[in-house]
Amino acid sequence: MLKEAVYHRPKDNYAYVCTISELHIQIRTKKDDIKRVTLLHGDPYDWNRKQWQPTTMAMKKSGSDQLFDYWFAAVTPPFKRFRYGFILDDGSETACYTEKGFYAEPPVDDTAYYFAFPFMNEADIFRAPKWVKDTVWYQIFPERFANGNKDNDPVNVIPWGSEAPSPSNFFGGDLEGVIQKVPYLKELGISGIYFTPIFKAYSNHKYDTIDYLEIDPQFGTKETLKKLIEVCHENGIKVMLDAVFNHSGFYFPQFQDVLENGENSRFKNWFHVHEFPLVTEPQPNYDTFAFTPLMPKLKTENPEVKEYLLSVGRYWVKEFDIDGWRLDVANEVDHAFWREFRREVKSLKHDLYILGEVWHDAMPWLRGDQFDAVMNYPFMTNILNLFAKESISVKEFVENMTSVIHMYPKNANEVAFNLVGSHDTARILTLCDEDIDRVKQVFTVLLTFIGSPCIYYGDEIGITGEMDPGCRKCMVWEKEEQNRDLFEHVQKLVRIRGEQPLLANNGDLRFISDGSDEGCLVYTKSDSGKNAVVILNTNSEAVNYTVPVNVRGKTVMNLFEDKEIAISGDKLELSLPGKGFAILLLY
Amino acid sequence: MLKEAVYHRPKDNYAYVCTISELHIQIRTKKDDIKRVTLLHGDPYDWNRKQWQPTTMAMKKSGSDQLFDYWFAAVTPPFKRFRYGFILDDGSETACYTEKGFYAEPPVDDTAYYFAFPFMNEADIFRAPKWVKDTVWYQIFPERFANGNKDNDPVNVIPWGSEAPSPSNFFGGDLEGVIQKVPYLKELGISGIYFTPIFKAYSNHKYDTIDYLEIDPQFGTKETLKKLIEVCHENGIKVMLDAVFNHSGFYFPQFQDVLENGENSRFKNWFHVHEFPLVTEPQPNYDTFAFTPLMPKLKTENPEVKEYLLSVGRYWVKEFDIDGWRLDVANEVDHAFWREFRREVKSLKHDLYILGEVWHDAMPWLRGDQFDAVMNYPFMTNILNLFAKESISVKEFVENMTSVIHMYPKNANEVAFNLVGSHDTARILTLCDEDIDRVKQVFTVLLTFIGSPCIYYGDEIGITGEMDPGCRKCMVWEKEEQNRDLFEHVQKLVRIRGEQPLLANNGDLRFISDGSDEGCLVYTKSDSGKNAVVILNTNSEAVNYTVPVNVRGKTVMNLFEDKEIAISGDKLELSLPGKGFAILLLY
Repeated sequence: MLKEAVYHRPKDNYAYVCTISELHIQIRTKKDDIKRVTLLHGDPYDWNRKQWQPTTMAMKKSGSDQLFDYWFAAVTPPFKRFRYGFILDDGSETACYTEKGFYAEPPVDDTAYYFAFPFMNEADIFRAPKWVKDTVWYQIFPERFANGNKDNDPVNVIPWGSEAPSPSNFFGGDLEGVIQKVPYLKELGISGIYFTPIFKAYSNHKYDTIDYLEIDPQFGTKETLKKLIEVCHENGIKVMLDAVFNHSGFYFPQFQDVLENGENSRFKNWFHVHEFPLVTEPQPNYDTFAFTPLMPKLKTENPEVKEYLLSVGRYWVKEFDIDGWRLDVANEVDHAFWREFRREVKSLKHDLYILGEVWHDAMPWLRGDQFDAVMNYPFMTNILNLFAKESISVKEFVENMTSVIHMYPKNANEVAFNLVGSHDTARILTLCDEDIDRVKQVFTVLLTFIGSPCIYYGDEIGITGEMDPGCRKCMVWEKEEQNRDLFEHVQKLVRIRGEQPLLANNGDLRFISDGSDEGCLVYTKSDSGKNAVVILNTNSEAVNYTVPVNVRGKTVMNLFEDKEIAISGDKLELSLPGKGFAILLLY
Repeated sequence: MLKEAVYHRPKDNYAYVCTISELHIQIRTKKDDIKRVTLLHGDPYDWNRKQWQPTTMAMKKSGSDQLFDYWFAAVTPPFKRFRYGFILDDGSETACYTEKGFYAEPPVDDTAYYFAFPFMNEADIFRAPKWVKDTVWYQIFPERFANGNKDNDPVNVIPWGSEAPSPSNFFGGDLEGVIQKVPYLKELGISGIYFTPIFKAYSNHKYDTIDYLEIDPQFGTKETLKKLIEVCHENGIKVMLDAVFNHSGFYFPQFQDVLENGENSRFKNWFHVHEFPLVTEPQPNYDTFAFTPLMPKLKTENPEVKEYLLSVGRYWVKEFDIDGWRLDVANEVDHAFWREFRREVKSLKHDLYILGEVWHDAMPWLRGDQFDAVMNYPFMTNILNLFAKESISVKEFVENMTSVIHMYPKNANEVAFNLVGSHDTARILTLCDEDIDRVKQVFTVLLTFIGSPCIYYGDEIGITGEMDPGCRKCMVWEKEEQNRDLFEHVQKLVRIRGEQPLLANNGDLRFISDGSDEGCLVYTKSDSGKNAVVILNTNSEAVNYTVPVNVRGKTVMNLFEDKEIAISGDKLELSLPGKGFAILLLY
């Protein structure tokens, strides 16, 4: 038994309250080392007894990555208090693993050896809005989606799609354009829009805010936004805005004031200034986003700055009824700020979605007190590596994705913001070498996986584009120039995800093959006797694939084709074309 | 190389900001497996370069427990942002360990592989009051310390020390008694008093509060407390009170109201009631502390209850200038409550000490947003097991204590509330089979270790007592009945801890022998060329012990004896009596 590989520490992804009555426990052991894990548990106060007599419960293996197996149990402690340990059995030896280490036999003279989950307090439960797990997002970069009003075009506007996107050109996209295209979004079937910034800013991407309380005049007015949100809500579409609170833009008046007045500026404590006067060359003498002097970092621990930004957070919720805040460079802002932010905006709208931009392990932001979700870049990386770059095997994909899933609590995974491209990455079609079949596979995974999926505008009609600025091309509205085949594929996926609760987030996801034999990625989502099975053939050649599920006596629907598959015997063999896929429902 | 044993996850004890400029990084590897650990690091935005070119830094082994080695590095990132990985070298193989797993060579095409500490935000730094690490505490159970005013004696008072303590008898101890004994506390040398509850309550221990805003009349009045705190402050003694916010007492009027009026009570949402009317038998139908119907759990997530308890927290700070709050059963109250509590009381007194009662791994409360410290019961357990119960070897002690130390950040360890007994445990002399020499060793460790030590009233004069209620005997004031030899031992330790900054918390603590040879426990605290060395002989027989430090050219002081030791050559051999000890200073 490899004791050194065993890991558990209460809270975070290892012990957390999932619902008011359900506590989830996870433990990690060396891959293929332990045969059985038994959870020993009981109430810490254990009355009426001389010795602690824990009860036992078998844990289930929930997945394996490159080095580890993960085991899971859901329990309902009658008094909301929980003391516990683990009996590990490798077939030849058993050991009891506790907070104080390993014991040959479970200690019974005291509960203090054991791990503690002291009380399942309601106030600490991670609770994301219920609507998020059934939402399919659509990310819009407003300058490039649709020009609905020529009157608010920037002075230097150039004709729609007439040039390649550059860091500085403007095509005139605006909010009125989005309103006009709501029927298109309905046709696609999405139920949430994530807008990159729309507040007054200098650049075309608007991440360099000048005024957090004004709509950029190139995009419209507050009335336009009100109308847009109204129209969206009438059509069952949520609206999420982008809050850039880590840094302001260079032309933010408070920063300009410090530039001008230095130490005499009444805003001198709004930024992280190393010395006065401010200089931008050869290197800024103030903290910035990355190394750009154009984005001075805001001092969020200054109560005045904090109150200003919190008032921004409140304003757009209260006055415009937005449904979500996406927080730019969220990982570089202090946790204390985000805790206050959550309290303030949720008190105005309890089911507001708070989404942080964190590219790495985000557990410290997903403890229930800060964000509901982060942008799931680790998910994206795996998808790209398997289907686009083809740089990893199915086995590696399964291992990596298992790591990603086991990094967070289940209720956090259900609302993770899953994406396969954004304004910060090359477009998926380009990354897939313009192979539509691989792009279809990518969307198939995106829309059947655990999490809240997001489609980057235009990816559904086959727009290409390299890394920023290439990925910020104008949306193509001429049907004949859209890839309608791809559009219909995505549209159908969105529809069946909406129709089959198992395809959204109502079932446990498991990989049921590591793909090492036939190069097929297979995962299931199961709930009370129903089973959705998603199969993707990563080979270029067709395969006859035997689904690793006993189908005797089951009804099997091909959900994507919307037809029943005739079954005889235990086995189901599918003929999958090269880069093909199937989405089945078994019940 | 045992990759499965390697563990690092940013934040908590693995990556934390210690001071505004200093980031601490820790990694765990299998014991005796890895020869060298090199920290690879750089700025995440890495400008001017095509490839990420991290710089390297050797990490130091900071300790070993039963299964693992721990490695440490302190770094000062120039832009307060940090991307990093680890090069592990086991002598025959090297591997690069990152957030995404192990690589043969450090990846340079992207920083996204690496661990991230995105920004060292000031607001998130764990900051305990500076005075705590130099404080020696004295815990007083007020009913049993001294009776200074006969007029406020309970009606059923019995003569001081005339009976064994029982769960229900009263001896008349009070606050006036403490005031009168301040000269004794000064003589002992302590600098902080931790009082178990003094608010109006039913029992003799006062953990069953009736009124959080009144002093228990048996203990005195608010004027008495004011005078007591004044006298303490004049004598350089801090005062910490006990807040019992997890539950109220049965006779708390709000609870009585619910008992009487059931669903019609305006306080029905102050408690966790399962159904009305309330019953206490055969089992309470409301949440309680443990299983006692006499201590109904307070519903701290109810805004009205929260505001009430926060107002209590504020009141005694604002009106009485107390220096600390010790929080009873703190682990069962929600984290959200404690975050607000911290903000509120620290805004009144920034250097107030917040100490939570958490007996198990307390990392989730020590992230800078809740407590400054917890009661260090894992420390106590190890001390008792080695010196009192003699159930573990020095080697096991060193391993266990290394685990405890590496469980938390360094700045949290420095203010840990270290104890060797309390009103909830048997007394140290009893646990040591009334062997004064072993008790002296216990105090020697307590007062030279990392953390803020606390002496339970009477332990310093050799009071005995089994588990509660036995450990709550009346303090003995007749000098001839006090063990003055033990008193002087403790007094001297308190004094030299005060005189030698290294003995308090100003040096790195390392165990320099695992004791397997000669049964001596040895640890050092070092800082800029100075070295304190503490040696304890756990054998019953005298040993000649060679201190495992090269002493050539050094001055060696025996601090406890206050005399210099003559040195010749590299080695220092000490003759230590059975159960003896030495405290040396080398410089």
